[in-house]
Amino acid sequence: MSDAKDADGGRRLRCAFQGERGAFSEEAAVRLLGEEIELVPCATFEKLFATVGEGAAELALAPVENTLAGSVHRVYELLAESRLRIAAEVVIPIAHHLVGCPGAKPEQLQSVESHPVALAQCERFFAARPHLARLATDDTAASVRRVVSAGDPARAAIGSRRAAEMYGGAIFAEHLEDHAENYTRFVLLAHEPRVLPRADKLSLVVKLAHRPGALHAALAPFARRGVNLQKIESRPVRGRPFQYLFYLDLQTAPGEDDSIEGALGETGPGVEELVVLGRYPSAAAAVNRHELLRSLQS
Amino acid sequence: MSDAKDADGGRRLRCAFQGERGAFSEEAAVRLLGEEIELVPCATFEKLFATVGEGAAELALAPVENTLAGSVHRVYELLAESRLRIAAEVVIPIAHHLVGCPGAKPEQLQSVESHPVALAQCERFFAARPHLARLATDDTAASVRRVVSAGDPARAAIGSRRAAEMYGGAIFAEHLEDHAENYTRFVLLAHEPRVLPRADKLSLVVKLAHRPGALHAALAPFARRGVNLQKIESRPVRGRPFQYLFYLDLQTAPGEDDSIEGALGETGPGVEELVVLGRYPSAAAAVNRHELLRSLQS
Repeated sequence: MSDAKDADGGRRLRCAFQGERGAFSEEAAVRLLGEEIELVPCATFEKLFATVGEGAAELALAPVENTLAGSVHRVYELLAESRLRIAAEVVIPIAHHLVGCPGAKPEQLQSVESHPVALAQCERFFAARPHLARLATDDTAASVRRVVSAGDPARAAIGSRRAAEMYGGAIFAEHLEDHAENYTRFVLLAHEPRVLPRADKLSLVVKLAHRPGALHAALAPFARRGVNLQKIESRPVRGRPFQYLFYLDLQTAPGEDDSIEGALGETGPGVEELVVLGRYPSAAAAVNRHELLRSLQS
Repeated sequence: MSDAKDADGGRRLRCAFQGERGAFSEEAAVRLLGEEIELVPCATFEKLFATVGEGAAELALAPVENTLAGSVHRVYELLAESRLRIAAEVVIPIAHHLVGCPGAKPEQLQSVESHPVALAQCERFFAARPHLARLATDDTAASVRRVVSAGDPARAAIGSRRAAEMYGGAIFAEHLEDHAENYTRFVLLAHEPRVLPRADKLSLVVKLAHRPGALHAALAPFARRGVNLQKIESRPVRGRPFQYLFYLDLQTAPGEDDSIEGALGETGPGVEELVVLGRYPSAAAAVNRHELLRSLQS
């Protein structure tokens, strides 16, 4: 199906995501790109990047942070090592539902299976039901699929509504998550994506010398130009004591290319390495889907 | 035992930690404070802070970051809300071992239980053994205790060497963790701890206005005084769009109180709130244990 055409007559784009069909990443991909694209499930983050690197998909959607769990450091590492760059972002609420076999009764349940992070985000549900065994699996959507196909009324899974619908599961309980403000931010990755006219966000990875004032000096050219900082996070560099990476998200004004280029050129001698992960429209910019798809096809 | 005396003749200090006896937090507490203190296990982070708040312990040890998983955001939240402050820090390697019943054989194993984060940090082990069911539990050490007391040769747990020794478990395999550079940093918390002469680290939580240059301006007084930045991380404030908290760790020179006070006084109008979480000797400063204990008893 990789040479199928979409409604606009263009080549149908393939977007890789981590997880099985019905994963939160798939939901995010559909929300950003619509149902017209072809979705390519990948078992791990490493395979996700390799799939696009090898040309088996044009796009990848990867989670970069969750409001409760923080940054997905492995994705940042892979992104900094790869040549893929950010074309767009999408933020979706993470709702965990209890999904069992149709016809089964919730009081028959003995075990609940899901990804360890999903299980950990539903502590209150399990604290109130100490008789339920919690089984950790590789994937939320795969857990839903396995529970439904086993047909065992004693088993249920924690997964998304999309996974329940996709695999024909019954939703026994909604919103098991402990905290309502549970959102995950995903970035859409491509080879050399075009910068869209409404691009208002710049993501950087910066390696700084570990000396006083290095970060302050690196931020100065952005501060002088009135560029706002949306995210900053330091990370020790693996195996290199006293070296630090910084993840930065900067809010830029659309059309300010010269200003941004100027700031990037003035970050100073304390910056040992600077990787522009992408310049793209933020989720808040609500970019037009067709415009985004057209820019990715060309 | 709370009125027992230690070897120095002082009151025996009680240190609360999250988890059961044998948890990594307990190991960290013993490494920092020795075996002379009384350890108080707490089921949750909320109970950990409440235990010290209510006077059932003088000290608490709390994890603040792991090299793989990043910051423990819930602890930062509780710390910023509480009146406890950081007195010292300790960093320990996290080694996950497979612990079963003495006399059982590894090939009899059918299931492995542990905390979801521990299970997730041993992906390679499970990928090579797809027949093993993974059971998520509330605690690594409690998993070891339950497996050993059940005496079922088909069950094993992932936990620390300390937990295996404490509950009489047999270590079937060592170092199941996927990444060797797996360290957790803990902070020791107390009410109004004295600043030790070798204090070389300053931890802050800063709430900044969401406007261009706010962080750059807040860092300026530290950069001017040659204060090095060890950690920085931005976090959205829950329920308040466009407000951000920053976690900052600054490396200071011992005895530079005036300079630090001066910098804290000059952070400027963009800083809406600033909480000094503590000024304390870093793990690298290798503070003398008796000196630390004496300062906490007085």
